[in-house]
Amino acid sequence: MEPSTPRPQLRVGLSPLYRTVNLGEQLGLNHLYVKDDGQNPTASLKDRASVIAVMKAVEEKMTTIACSSTGNAASSLAGNAAAMGLKTFIFVPGRAPQGKVAQLLIFGANVISVQGSYSDAFQLSAEAIERWGWYNRNAAINPYLMEGKKTVSLEIAEQLAWDAPDWVVVSVGDGCIISGVWKGFQDLYRVGWIDKLPKLLGVQAAGCSPLADAILEDRAWRPAEENTIADSIAVGVPRNAEKALRAVRESKGTMVTVSDEEILSAMRLLGRTSGIFGEPAGVTGLAGLKTLVERGVIGSDERVVVIVTGNGLKDVKNAITAAGEPIKVEPSMDQLVAELKKRQLP
Amino acid sequence: MEPSTPRPQLRVGLSPLYRTVNLGEQLGLNHLYVKDDGQNPTASLKDRASVIAVMKAVEEKMTTIACSSTGNAASSLAGNAAAMGLKTFIFVPGRAPQGKVAQLLIFGANVISVQGSYSDAFQLSAEAIERWGWYNRNAAINPYLMEGKKTVSLEIAEQLAWDAPDWVVVSVGDGCIISGVWKGFQDLYRVGWIDKLPKLLGVQAAGCSPLADAILEDRAWRPAEENTIADSIAVGVPRNAEKALRAVRESKGTMVTVSDEEILSAMRLLGRTSGIFGEPAGVTGLAGLKTLVERGVIGSDERVVVIVTGNGLKDVKNAITAAGEPIKVEPSMDQLVAELKKRQLP
Repeated sequence: MEPSTPRPQLRVGLSPLYRTVNLGEQLGLNHLYVKDDGQNPTASLKDRASVIAVMKAVEEKMTTIACSSTGNAASSLAGNAAAMGLKTFIFVPGRAPQGKVAQLLIFGANVISVQGSYSDAFQLSAEAIERWGWYNRNAAINPYLMEGKKTVSLEIAEQLAWDAPDWVVVSVGDGCIISGVWKGFQDLYRVGWIDKLPKLLGVQAAGCSPLADAILEDRAWRPAEENTIADSIAVGVPRNAEKALRAVRESKGTMVTVSDEEILSAMRLLGRTSGIFGEPAGVTGLAGLKTLVERGVIGSDERVVVIVTGNGLKDVKNAITAAGEPIKVEPSMDQLVAELKKRQLP
Repeated sequence: MEPSTPRPQLRVGLSPLYRTVNLGEQLGLNHLYVKDDGQNPTASLKDRASVIAVMKAVEEKMTTIACSSTGNAASSLAGNAAAMGLKTFIFVPGRAPQGKVAQLLIFGANVISVQGSYSDAFQLSAEAIERWGWYNRNAAINPYLMEGKKTVSLEIAEQLAWDAPDWVVVSVGDGCIISGVWKGFQDLYRVGWIDKLPKLLGVQAAGCSPLADAILEDRAWRPAEENTIADSIAVGVPRNAEKALRAVRESKGTMVTVSDEEILSAMRLLGRTSGIFGEPAGVTGLAGLKTLVERGVIGSDERVVVIVTGNGLKDVKNAITAAGEPIKVEPSMDQLVAELKKRQLP
């Protein structure tokens, strides 16, 4: 039953695709699915790429891996590297939420918190990787990583019994995930396992939307500010801009921007209707979908998959902002009755 | 491909069982496995029971479910109830970590934060459930829930190809999980799918160990203080004490207590060797296993499964306590070199 020489195992998972009926009713969509990648081993879609990075590093007999990351790529790399006995140096921007930093530290990573933007962290990591010769997991640089990210599309297609959806909706930061999503569906289409390609809807936060602006104004992209609560996609200088723009255009899809308020509102909506808890960037796709359904761009009978890219537990502070505080009572029935009455409950 | 009338879906998952080779080497165990229930839909083992609770409530045409909980049962109930369109009233002790409370609020639960102990929260919930006639998900009361919890054992047995382990190790609070674990293996044994029963090692925090004390002193249990960072198992008056004690005794297993320092140390050990991030109560089992291996109670060739009952992202504060802080630098290569040198890195 066991191999004679047991080997360490990478952290690979298969995330669920839920038919979200209640959420669909709220949005006016009859065929809505949510792919919850917040249930991956380190609670984000990035595990799909980190598994490949660590595997390739082991293949090339490297002992140290490095990357810069808004947080999720970092924690998934650190977790997978720990499982395989590799050392990691991780560069995160100072703003990275505590949950992501805690994961890194627990996984034994050497965590460099760069007091600056994501671009600063990326730049410093590039110099350090060059200097010390570490294996490079920066997704926009390492061509293998897309082969990991595309697995989300392979899973979606399989979970829909090889009947591709009309739309796939996902948030966009560096542009690596949406490029990977497109690669996955393209591969399946080319080998004939699906007979049509979905349109991609890429969603960015209004406070940091270099790629959405390029699509909407039909021009080349330009660097932008990083001003949104959706930290994972607060990427002013996207490292995979060209691939992302090409993916959206080739798919005949589009992009859209949403405000931070719409993101927090999508977090509540997803939780209350579906029992799924996404981080701000994780639900940004849903916020954008809501907008495009309201505008009539996506019709009620189209089959839509929204990818939730990361777990809300990684960023509790913003969740509390979205959802409010509990009702505090002393252990007394009288007080409970009074407090509930105030709120016209139950 | 789709049913003509789509129905909401419960949040059920199958959690991975990892062969943790590096961790085994550190502990001196040749056949060590970790069952990571932190990857369940709401990130704890409690999802297994909440699915059943919500299903039974729907069957009985109830529209509101209530429970008291140290946090995990609560968030899993709220998530599953949200997915099925049911209302929830959740009673948590004031000390419940922010991550768990955030989940509840996002899932739209009515959260009552009882300013007192878990026992106070339990008592108040019982009175409220009586008064308003809500469906009762309190695990020690509702007999169906064990049928959910036992699925962790069914999965372990299947993942080990029906070759039952010598030991199953799990943390103990209310006593419901360990009773469910035992029920699962007993069921499999009775129908002949496994040909031996594992011994159970139940682990409690030294600051709250009414059941471990009863086992170790071979006497009836007595109420205890609730004084540990492992909030999920800080249960001074365990609601399923008799069943838990019977399970440990019938299995010819034992119990042990560990200090909060040992729990934090187990959190680091698990993360660094295995890329798995458990909350304090989630790794308490591992801390106890370490102790019993050191004492020679568990031998190096015994096959051991440790259940990690909840995700570390639910309690980031204690993780940071366990793992320290990142290295802060300005975006400057000179400063990076200097800071790494100080720490004799890389």
